[in-house]
Amino acid sequence: MASTAAVGLAAIAEGQAPPTGCVTAREPFASAGLPGFADLVVGGHDISSVTMTKRAECLVETGMIPPRLLAATHDALERADAEVRPGYDPRGGTDDTSQQAVAERLAADITSFRDRHELARVVVVDLSSTEAPVAPAPEHDDLDALLTALADPARAVLPASSVSAYAAILAGAAYAAFTPSAGMGIPALARLADERGIPVAGQDGKTGQTWLRTVLAPAFAARGLKVLSWAGTNLLGGGDGATLADPDAVRSKLATKSRGLTALTGSETTPLHIDNVPDLGDIKVAWDHVHVEGFLGSRLTLQTTWSAHDSMLAAPLVLDLARLLALAHAAGISGTVQELGFFFKDPWDSDVHDAAEQARVLEEWVRRTSAQVGS
Amino acid sequence: MASTAAVGLAAIAEGQAPPTGCVTAREPFASAGLPGFADLVVGGHDISSVTMTKRAECLVETGMIPPRLLAATHDALERADAEVRPGYDPRGGTDDTSQQAVAERLAADITSFRDRHELARVVVVDLSSTEAPVAPAPEHDDLDALLTALADPARAVLPASSVSAYAAILAGAAYAAFTPSAGMGIPALARLADERGIPVAGQDGKTGQTWLRTVLAPAFAARGLKVLSWAGTNLLGGGDGATLADPDAVRSKLATKSRGLTALTGSETTPLHIDNVPDLGDIKVAWDHVHVEGFLGSRLTLQTTWSAHDSMLAAPLVLDLARLLALAHAAGISGTVQELGFFFKDPWDSDVHDAAEQARVLEEWVRRTSAQVGS
Amino acid sequence: MASTAAVGLAAIAEGQAPPTGCVTAREPFASAGLPGFADLVVGGHDISSVTMTKRAECLVETGMIPPRLLAATHDALERADAEVRPGYDPRGGTDDTSQQAVAERLAADITSFRDRHELARVVVVDLSSTEAPVAPAPEHDDLDALLTALADPARAVLPASSVSAYAAILAGAAYAAFTPSAGMGIPALARLADERGIPVAGQDGKTGQTWLRTVLAPAFAARGLKVLSWAGTNLLGGGDGATLADPDAVRSKLATKSRGLTALTGSETTPLHIDNVPDLGDIKVAWDHVHVEGFLGSRLTLQTTWSAHDSMLAAPLVLDLARLLALAHAAGISGTVQELGFFFKDPWDSDVHDAAEQARVLEEWVRRTSAQVGS
Amino acid sequence: MASTAAVGLAAIAEGQAPPTGCVTAREPFASAGLPGFADLVVGGHDISSVTMTKRAECLVETGMIPPRLLAATHDALERADAEVRPGYDPRGGTDDTSQQAVAERLAADITSFRDRHELARVVVVDLSSTEAPVAPAPEHDDLDALLTALADPARAVLPASSVSAYAAILAGAAYAAFTPSAGMGIPALARLADERGIPVAGQDGKTGQTWLRTVLAPAFAARGLKVLSWAGTNLLGGGDGATLADPDAVRSKLATKSRGLTALTGSETTPLHIDNVPDLGDIKVAWDHVHVEGFLGSRLTLQTTWSAHDSMLAAPLVLDLARLLALAHAAGISGTVQELGFFFKDPWDSDVHDAAEQARVLEEWVRRTSAQVGS
Ligand SMILES: NC(=O)c1ccc[n+]([C@@H]2O[C@H](COP(=O)([O-])OP(=O)(O)OC[C@H]3O[C@@H](n4cnc5c(N)ncnc54)[C@H](O)[C@@H]3O)[C@@H](O)[C@H]2O)c1
Ligand SMILES: NC(=O)c1ccc[n+]([C@@H]2O[C@H](COP(=O)([O-])OP(=O)(O)OC[C@H]3O[C@@H](n4cnc5c(N)ncnc54)[C@H](O)[C@@H]3O)[C@@H](O)[C@H]2O)c1
Ligand SMILES: NC(=O)c1ccc[n+]([C@@H]2O[C@H](COP(=O)([O-])OP(=O)(O)OC[C@H]3O[C@@H](n4cnc5c(N)ncnc54)[C@H](O)[C@@H]3O)[C@@H](O)[C@H]2O)c1
Ligand SMILES: NC(=O)c1ccc[n+]([C@@H]2O[C@H](COP(=O)([O-])OP(=O)(O)OC[C@H]3O[C@@H](n4cnc5c(N)ncnc54)[C@H](O)[C@@H]3O)[C@@H](O)[C@H]2O)c1
Ligand code: NA
Ligand code: NA
Repeated sequence: MASTAAVGLAAIAEGQAPPTGCVTAREPFASAGLPGFADLVVGGHDISSVTMTKRAECLVETGMIPPRLLAATHDALERADAEVRPGYDPRGGTDDTSQQAVAERLAADITSFRDRHELARVVVVDLSSTEAPVAPAPEHDDLDALLTALADPARAVLPASSVSAYAAILAGAAYAAFTPSAGMGIPALARLADERGIPVAGQDGKTGQTWLRTVLAPAFAARGLKVLSWAGTNLLGGGDGATLADPDAVRSKLATKSRGLTALTGSETTPLHIDNVPDLGDIKVAWDHVHVEGFLGSRLTLQTTWSAHDSMLAAPLVLDLARLLALAHAAGISGTVQELGFFFKDPWDSDVHDAAEQARVLEEWVRRTSAQVGS
Repeated sequence: MASTAAVGLAAIAEGQAPPTGCVTAREPFASAGLPGFADLVVGGHDISSVTMTKRAECLVETGMIPPRLLAATHDALERADAEVRPGYDPRGGTDDTSQQAVAERLAADITSFRDRHELARVVVVDLSSTEAPVAPAPEHDDLDALLTALADPARAVLPASSVSAYAAILAGAAYAAFTPSAGMGIPALARLADERGIPVAGQDGKTGQTWLRTVLAPAFAARGLKVLSWAGTNLLGGGDGATLADPDAVRSKLATKSRGLTALTGSETTPLHIDNVPDLGDIKVAWDHVHVEGFLGSRLTLQTTWSAHDSMLAAPLVLDLARLLALAHAAGISGTVQELGFFFKDPWDSDVHDAAEQARVLEEWVRRTSAQVGS
Repeated sequence: MASTAAVGLAAIAEGQAPPTGCVTAREPFASAGLPGFADLVVGGHDISSVTMTKRAECLVETGMIPPRLLAATHDALERADAEVRPGYDPRGGTDDTSQQAVAERLAADITSFRDRHELARVVVVDLSSTEAPVAPAPEHDDLDALLTALADPARAVLPASSVSAYAAILAGAAYAAFTPSAGMGIPALARLADERGIPVAGQDGKTGQTWLRTVLAPAFAARGLKVLSWAGTNLLGGGDGATLADPDAVRSKLATKSRGLTALTGSETTPLHIDNVPDLGDIKVAWDHVHVEGFLGSRLTLQTTWSAHDSMLAAPLVLDLARLLALAHAAGISGTVQELGFFFKDPWDSDVHDAAEQARVLEEWVRRTSAQVGS
Repeated sequence: MASTAAVGLAAIAEGQAPPTGCVTAREPFASAGLPGFADLVVGGHDISSVTMTKRAECLVETGMIPPRLLAATHDALERADAEVRPGYDPRGGTDDTSQQAVAERLAADITSFRDRHELARVVVVDLSSTEAPVAPAPEHDDLDALLTALADPARAVLPASSVSAYAAILAGAAYAAFTPSAGMGIPALARLADERGIPVAGQDGKTGQTWLRTVLAPAFAARGLKVLSWAGTNLLGGGDGATLADPDAVRSKLATKSRGLTALTGSETTPLHIDNVPDLGDIKVAWDHVHVEGFLGSRLTLQTTWSAHDSMLAAPLVLDLARLLALAHAAGISGTVQELGFFFKDPWDSDVHDAAEQARVLEEWVRRTSAQVGS
């Protein structure tokens, strides 16, 4: 997804592709004084040595990206690859480095990147592989205890995603969690971000079937129709399919996906499956069957079949988040920006799942905030 | 649909069925001071002598209404049947009665109904068979000329639906057009309604496939995704299926159904079919295929299959309109109540088709208006 | 399903309903000299005291059977109920009766039924609740050991379905297994049936999604197209839905359902789910997604959505089996009638799953056998 | 489709692709002594100067053919292009050439092609654009009159497809009609082919939705289930979509597509639409809704959604027809080979539409004929 986003950004910036799929390319965002696509500079951290250029070539081979676009963006991709620094790999073996030292190294990378490119600000977006759930620890709720533990080379009190989030705080960078990993979701970190003036958004990009459900379910409710059951099946291959073939990994994903639906419909009959179908590759096919009670006990059914390239849905939202958090940062907003809930399956500090309501709130926020920054 | 609405109203009023499918049964409507279901009294005009009681018995036989509910509402239905008066049938042959005289007769029926039941007000909802399109006439835009023509027994300047609308004005009754017929859509009548303090809402109930499309299309737009084509097929039997098997009748229906979609998506590739499939009876099955362009020219598809009893979707909205127009009337609102656009395929005096936006506007209107009436 | 079959048989016999859904009502079966519908007499064993008449009344209430048909068949149902005798309930507590004695009692019921109605023969069809899988025992393969164990009141060497199958053998009645229970699948019993001239057919009625798959999969193969994956989801409520909500029960069902598919397609990617969706009642909704490789690596997809009343699909096949096994019995065929594989998910002694091939084999068998009986 | 077939043949012959989608690649065909893929040589007639090499490049650009395959087959394609001669274009203006002379020129091309490549025989497959329906003429039924008219330079008694069919006869080449054009369907030509020992097969390739329907409809019939209605919609773009956007062109196509369905189901309620959806390109999406009556008047529905690249389904069948007609020719069969009905929407001289039955007949024919040729 990072590679797709980088190819797309370069193509849009150079006028080789329209910004289709980007929320911020339409009004009221387009005239809201967000940084232009061409003003964004790409860098990052990765623990793999496979470059984005290399990954983009694979995407061309599987037919996802047209050859023309790769040619047009090749130089920009290589420039971005040159700005990727080694991430923090907790499986990296025992050495004498504390997590505090790691975070400072990552933060220094960010600061250097900002300074060398003379950027107004940096937005960190977590696009790394989903981590296993984190066991709760007392330090997660107590900043002093956390800082002590971070300084201890013998301890690994935070998961990698949260060390990166801490590094963003240290570097004064805005932060978004596109994954369900812990990241900035550690309470002590969230409070620290708030204190240090860091705007934060999360969690877990809402891109396909879950988005569709949060469009439809509120519409049934607005009609006074009662959802009796909402059954769903997802078929997908690729890396994500393989990952979710693991019964543990999939259990937490299924829980998250159903939470919003139950909140919106009041129904507990929401069986949901995610099947690994390797031959589908990056295509995700999702079937939903909605059984609804109407007037005088009558029944209606709605079936939906959704078929899309998963990362093509996600990548433009990453560019949106970068632009919107830049605005939040410029406006001096700190802590969770609830108004960005539109982008997330599990919005931090919010119970609003209704996609139309989230879109409205987002538009109002952009109008208000850009007016404030502009003045 | 009238019979279904009457059965349902009686069942709800007597606590035999919950008001599922009624928009006004949920908040903020429920506490908005609308007239209670039990406060509504049913009467009407019809040109057929088949009673609602008789029709309800047929609905039981085809399995649409449970026998239990018919038994529970039988007396209420007979009371309603006793309040049905002969409508105006333009095919009724040449006699000496002017349309003005007809309208006065219909208005007198309404006034008598109101007085005998000591009602605060009457709401007329047009639920009669869809008429053929009306040829424009100069009198339609000029009230004086219209009144002159109405007084002439040799002329039939208005279609039946508009004579009924005129009668509602004469009786001081609020008015809603659930059909695509002309009704109050004649400009001179619309202005007269406005002058006489008559609140008006229309046109053509938005109940199934069209409603679903106006839920989904704005959601794609909010994501910056570009709808390339939206193809649809409707299968239905029953009276409506037979009516729409007529190539002329169906042409105007198809136009109306596609107008909102093109407005919302910008795409002109919206092939749509309505097929008469007699064996389906009152069940409407609608299949849509949406082809969408996403990031970097990628494609996604959404298919929906909708299956529902048509009149079961429509009837509760009729009850909603009665309650909401009663509020408008109590608040002294006159002319088109644009805020009721939620209920209509082709909302009068409005370009808003987005169902979520319409729901929001409706809720705000009810809060505001009921506060005003209450104070 | 037994009640549905009994209502249907009476309605067909009395000319109140056409034999739609019965395989044997069309050519070449119709003129094959099978016993007429009106020649069949219904009796049975049950461990419940709820009569078929009572169950049929429930089916009318839920809208599955029209009231008219119940009235027309009421007397026939009561006559059938009068021919139902207590079945063998293994949970019936410890008493001194050996399974041999139980089987002899059941066999005596059958013989008495045959004699009192002066029937040419009896066909026993197992329509009882699916049993748990049976642990293998040495007696199951050794008739002498089995007979010894059956005679021992302290032992329960056979599951109930196999005691009934043994009773059929003792009574000289033909036998069909419409369930996945063990029944006549115990090797020693199967051999005994063969020796005693008992025709036998099984196992597990192939009525809906599985039938559809065995229609489509061979068609893809005939085109040289390669099925890559075949994913499926079943939604159903009712008693069967609740039963299959049990993870153990569903595991064996899923295995059986996929076996034929893998045999037909060669693909192992056949994820399949059965979800309990109580609000659907007796309706089964099944979605399949087939991903196929074609010429030069191109891909095609087929999706199917099937929606049907489960027992309405099964009941007419029960009548067919009764008629066809009567023919087999008349023809002196003994042992498994492989040519009846058309009716079963897991056909005994056969690897043919292709529904069209099974239909062809069945037709040829009926022509051949009825010619032989007729001569 | 011709270009796709040529690319595919070269790829298969050179071991670069498996023969997926070819009926003749599996048993009993594979061991039936048909000519090997590598033994086939490609030539043809076209009225366009766009080469197959050029068209294949376009197919690569739209992602239909992988770049690898084009590279591997480039030389073979150029060899085939070198064997394409000018076809007969009836719009070619008035000149002094009689259709007899044209047919002799085309026949000479075929003979020369056979001789230069030392081929045992040639099979002509009509893959040209669908022609308008042909007005009947007396000469079409009378060979002598036809020959006289063909010799007259002032007349154009045959459509282009039939001139080509006549040329095949003159050259002694076997002939298949993959299009709905007249071709060899002119009675006088059909008889001439029969007399001259020419094996013939047609008409109109059965590749997608129609094939699926002829798989499913007989399966319902075999179950004794009664199809009440079968509604369908086809969405497609590309050249075929544009062609069928013409109301006249589409009318004949719709008739042909429904004929088999009505024959198989007995239902006349088979509404069918073909919509031009340019953004879908070569992808054909077909939705079918089947409404079926079962036991005791119960209802079931089956929906199918089919999505495939149209020409990828058709091209391998073209290779099959070439191989099978070569066998027929070697066996000395003349006239319509009814046993090839499997391949056609509107099989000549046959009422069999059931795909499974057609497959069985085809297999038997191949076994029988190859045994005869082999001996
Ligand atoms: N529609 C979508 O695609 C979608 C939607 C919502 C969420 N997500 C989430 O987005 C994330 C990325 O998805 P993807 O498809 O790009 O996955 P991917 O496997 O293609 O890429 C993950 C990248 O993260 C890197 N990485 C792993 N651990 C790291 C660490 N500690 N530090 C730095 N880099 C690290 C990997 O080396 C790899 O480059 C996943 O967590 C996924 O669940 C995706
Ligand atoms: N989902 C829906 O059911 C739906 C949605 C939108 C609009 N509509 C519209 O609602 C209307 C009613 O639908 P229905 O299914 O109840 O139709 P219907 O045919 O069952 O009933 C129409 C009734 O109107 C009466 N009528 C006809 N002309 C009249 C006249 N001049 N004066 C008085 N009564 C007259 C008829 O006698 C009949 O009783 C139709 O115009 C339909 O297009 C229905
Ligand atoms: N489409 C279908 O409906 C379908 C398809 C294939 C197989 N089946 C199988 O058919 C069987 C019957 O299904 P149903 O829906 O009628 O179930 P059901 O639960 O409605 O009826 C089962 C009956 O069996 C009786 N029974 C239980 N144990 C018994 C015993 N030991 N002896 C005698 N009677 C006994 C019960 O009392 C009850 O009357 C099930 O095993 C089911 O899996 C059904
Ligand atoms: N699934 C399928 O693709 C399918 C199925 C059934 C039938 N068909 C039929 O196959 C035919 C070919 O389809 P296509 O997609 O390849 O079409 P196409 O338009 O791509 O190709 C048609 C070719 O025929 C040539 N041609 C036209 N008139 C000619 C003439 N008089 N002599 C010689 N050549 C002539 C054109 O120049 C062109 O090269 C059509 O008739 C179509 O209806 C296709
Ligand atoms: Na939340
Ligand atoms: Na034919």
